[in-house]
Amino acid sequence: MDSTEPLSPTPRSTVRRGAKRARTDRSDLYAVLDAGLVGHLGVVLDGAPVVLPTGYGRRGDTLYLHGSTGAASLRAAAAGAPVCFTVTHLDGIVYARSTFHHSVNYRCAVVHGTARVVHDEQERLLGLEALTEQLAPGSWSAARLPDRKELAATTVLALDLTEAGVKVRTGPPGDDERDLALPVWAGVLPLRTVAGGAEPCPLLPAEVPVPEHVLERRVSLGA
Amino acid sequence: MDSTEPLSPTPRSTVRRGAKRARTDRSDLYAVLDAGLVGHLGVVLDGAPVVLPTGYGRRGDTLYLHGSTGAASLRAAAAGAPVCFTVTHLDGIVYARSTFHHSVNYRCAVVHGTARVVHDEQERLLGLEALTEQLAPGSWSAARLPDRKELAATTVLALDLTEAGVKVRTGPPGDDERDLALPVWAGVLPLRTVAGGAEPCPLLPAEVPVPEHVLERRVSLGA
Repeated sequence: MDSTEPLSPTPRSTVRRGAKRARTDRSDLYAVLDAGLVGHLGVVLDGAPVVLPTGYGRRGDTLYLHGSTGAASLRAAAAGAPVCFTVTHLDGIVYARSTFHHSVNYRCAVVHGTARVVHDEQERLLGLEALTEQLAPGSWSAARLPDRKELAATTVLALDLTEAGVKVRTGPPGDDERDLALPVWAGVLPLRTVAGGAEPCPLLPAEVPVPEHVLERRVSLGA
Repeated sequence: MDSTEPLSPTPRSTVRRGAKRARTDRSDLYAVLDAGLVGHLGVVLDGAPVVLPTGYGRRGDTLYLHGSTGAASLRAAAAGAPVCFTVTHLDGIVYARSTFHHSVNYRCAVVHGTARVVHDEQERLLGLEALTEQLAPGSWSAARLPDRKELAATTVLALDLTEAGVKVRTGPPGDDERDLALPVWAGVLPLRTVAGGAEPCPLLPAEVPVPEHVLERRVSLGA
């Protein structure tokens, strides 16, 4: 699939509530995923949902997840249980003239599917590279790569971006006509995630400078 | 329960992976929840997990959720399906000397349970007030309160904070001893969510000033 191909949602990936906020371009899905740091993975364990934050990476139309071979959620997903992976960016608090129309501006991608355990060593490394670079661009070439023992302790999962929905809210509050004359302030308090100054590990020799890729990460997030 | 009472986790709310990161004080749970703006609600629909972002509010040991009476996840939760509600704060990107030990600093609260539909009008208002004030403190007394029709369109759910776990990672990377001499920068890039300047609704008369509670919200988030 290329990024101009529209998302073809199934019934469960179709945005039903607030359908006007649904985006249908695959490029919107990529943009929301690529801008994130962690997502929330949902699996069903003993009939009940479990939702945990976790890192991820994307290569084309494949989302890579990873985790310890001992983690219960990962084990369930690896065993073929259906999963849901959601990435949300909070962009603003929306103050309306009524409490009912208070809202948030956000971008949210929801991916449904069944994960595939990656066995091929080359794809496992590709997935782990995608995961590392999603969080910390430049680290895959700067840091020590995983050794045999670390790889053996890690499950890498691949989730196809076939069944996915994107929902975005932007702009001012959607107040009722009848409320517009109320003497109540309305508007948006924009939110963003920013990075502070890099904090070197206390065990690092004092002369080691903060490398370019870390400085750039700070800028790309918005310092 | 008071905040000094320890969390008494059940098997599924016991932190198993990275148990050293588990927190067992109820006050830690409150702190993570109270600092959040949205959480991720997981429910099971047709045997598959669905994870969606949503607002919430807390009063004592009750978490309040709300949504349209027509929303599928809310309907499932209201019908007594088990839910999982997770609030995550991302506090930093952890750069290690190996890719394997790259991580994030975070605070995460996970609540398991079955939601109760709130029918009592007074508690419904209490729940909606908690939800509004969690997102936009001061708005409950500043904005128009929900009318009968709006209340009829809203489901309010209560989730007991009985079965909950809290996990927190702080500090520098946990590198292997053997990697400490590598010429690789290691440390933390701290992250935080900040608010920009308030953006008034275009339909607002120019003379309406940004009220104190919105200015304070910006400060409380970190401008």
